[in-house]
Amino acid sequence: MASVHPPKSGLVRFRAVVAYDGTAFGGFQVQPGERTVQDELEKAVHTITREPARIHPSGRTDTGVHAVGQVIHFDIPPKLEPRRLLFALNAVLPDDVKVQRLVRARPDFHARFSATGKEYRYFIWNGAAVPPHLRLYRMHESRPLDLAAMRAAAASLRGRHDFASFSANPRRDVHGTERDLSRLDVNRRAGEVVIRAAADGFLYKMVRSLAGFLWQVGLGAESPAAVPALLAAAARNQRVPTAPARGLFLWKVHY
Amino acid sequence: MASVHPPKSGLVRFRAVVAYDGTAFGGFQVQPGERTVQDELEKAVHTITREPARIHPSGRTDTGVHAVGQVIHFDIPPKLEPRRLLFALNAVLPDDVKVQRLVRARPDFHARFSATGKEYRYFIWNGAAVPPHLRLYRMHESRPLDLAAMRAAAASLRGRHDFASFSANPRRDVHGTERDLSRLDVNRRAGEVVIRAAADGFLYKMVRSLAGFLWQVGLGAESPAAVPALLAAAARNQRVPTAPARGLFLWKVHY
Repeated sequence: MASVHPPKSGLVRFRAVVAYDGTAFGGFQVQPGERTVQDELEKAVHTITREPARIHPSGRTDTGVHAVGQVIHFDIPPKLEPRRLLFALNAVLPDDVKVQRLVRARPDFHARFSATGKEYRYFIWNGAAVPPHLRLYRMHESRPLDLAAMRAAAASLRGRHDFASFSANPRRDVHGTERDLSRLDVNRRAGEVVIRAAADGFLYKMVRSLAGFLWQVGLGAESPAAVPALLAAAARNQRVPTAPARGLFLWKVHY
Repeated sequence: MASVHPPKSGLVRFRAVVAYDGTAFGGFQVQPGERTVQDELEKAVHTITREPARIHPSGRTDTGVHAVGQVIHFDIPPKLEPRRLLFALNAVLPDDVKVQRLVRARPDFHARFSATGKEYRYFIWNGAAVPPHLRLYRMHESRPLDLAAMRAAAASLRGRHDFASFSANPRRDVHGTERDLSRLDVNRRAGEVVIRAAADGFLYKMVRSLAGFLWQVGLGAESPAAVPALLAAAARNQRVPTAPARGLFLWKVHY
């Protein structure tokens, strides 16, 4: 892979897996007036290394969205071994963002440009009440969900399509609106329904749109047969609701 | 089964599965100056039915211990159908305690006296840092844990034994200190170690003592070979630490 943005002279690149509870964050990316994950990570790197460092993620996540497998890179002077740096960063980071793993990266690694795909998981608690320890991490639906219908709809959505109908703002995406949705599984596990979505990339709010539509299919308000026409329309439609952020986790980034 | 404490005339018995996040509770049982699960449940029943009702659990849980499958019973006038009562109670209960299921029980059902056994799960996050969405629900150990050694120790602990060495206050138990530990499994799952313990009953802080000892075995500080002598001593020993409450869930009560 071409070295797109190598570290400046005297700096080395680190690559890290980061987990966060999105509840109290205004998303990943630094923006004025919002508490963001990027801000907390940049402050922690500065506290430990006394050097300014820009944090580059695999991609942004929206307000309220959680992560167990976000990947970042940053360039700093080679003063600390990765394991010491990992523990030092976690000692100063707040409770709701923690580094899970950290290694020295090759200079041509780039958290965003080297990524070949991502996996998200969306969790719907499907019972009378969400168990309290999961209350910030699940969408709630107490009515029965038709898993077979959700799976049929998911099968029609899998593959390479124009997903403009399943994005909140498709016009904004510089890479167009076609994506290869290699995986869209729906499974029941104990009291909940788990949607796993993997693709080479996702449009803005695409996973929450897919989850929102599958939820409507599960309730019988939409039919799996509606998928081809919805995809073909390639424009946002009221029939595709955006499921709440709290049920969504960025699970893994593939390289 | 004998009807030990049937409902008073004019009342019917309800049986419910209750889940709670133990973080902000001073345990289950009502006690002065503490916020307790029992208190919140009794207030909720009173708000909905306008009748005083005593909540009877399968057993107490300690400060900070969580539950997904606590079972309770209570007796109230038969004014509401179970499903309406379930949703009404959840509407007034605080976020950290919710009723998962609720049915009318036979008059001879008793949450505590009818129970034939219980299952607990203890979760140890075994990595650099606990993922933030689990931070209130996991013990943390970043050093490697020897799963084979933990399993060997668990195998020696399974079965009918005097568990006085694995209780914080064995003298207090009116039923003596012998229990049948039918299950004690140790499994690795993604980044964590999960201990499942099932028995006909548990002594005070027994699961946290078993988890604490298995943790020491996992670190190599204790050996599975030490189990027979520890059991035979039948007295609390410094070598058995009490693992933190935050990692413990009352998972299921058997009837």
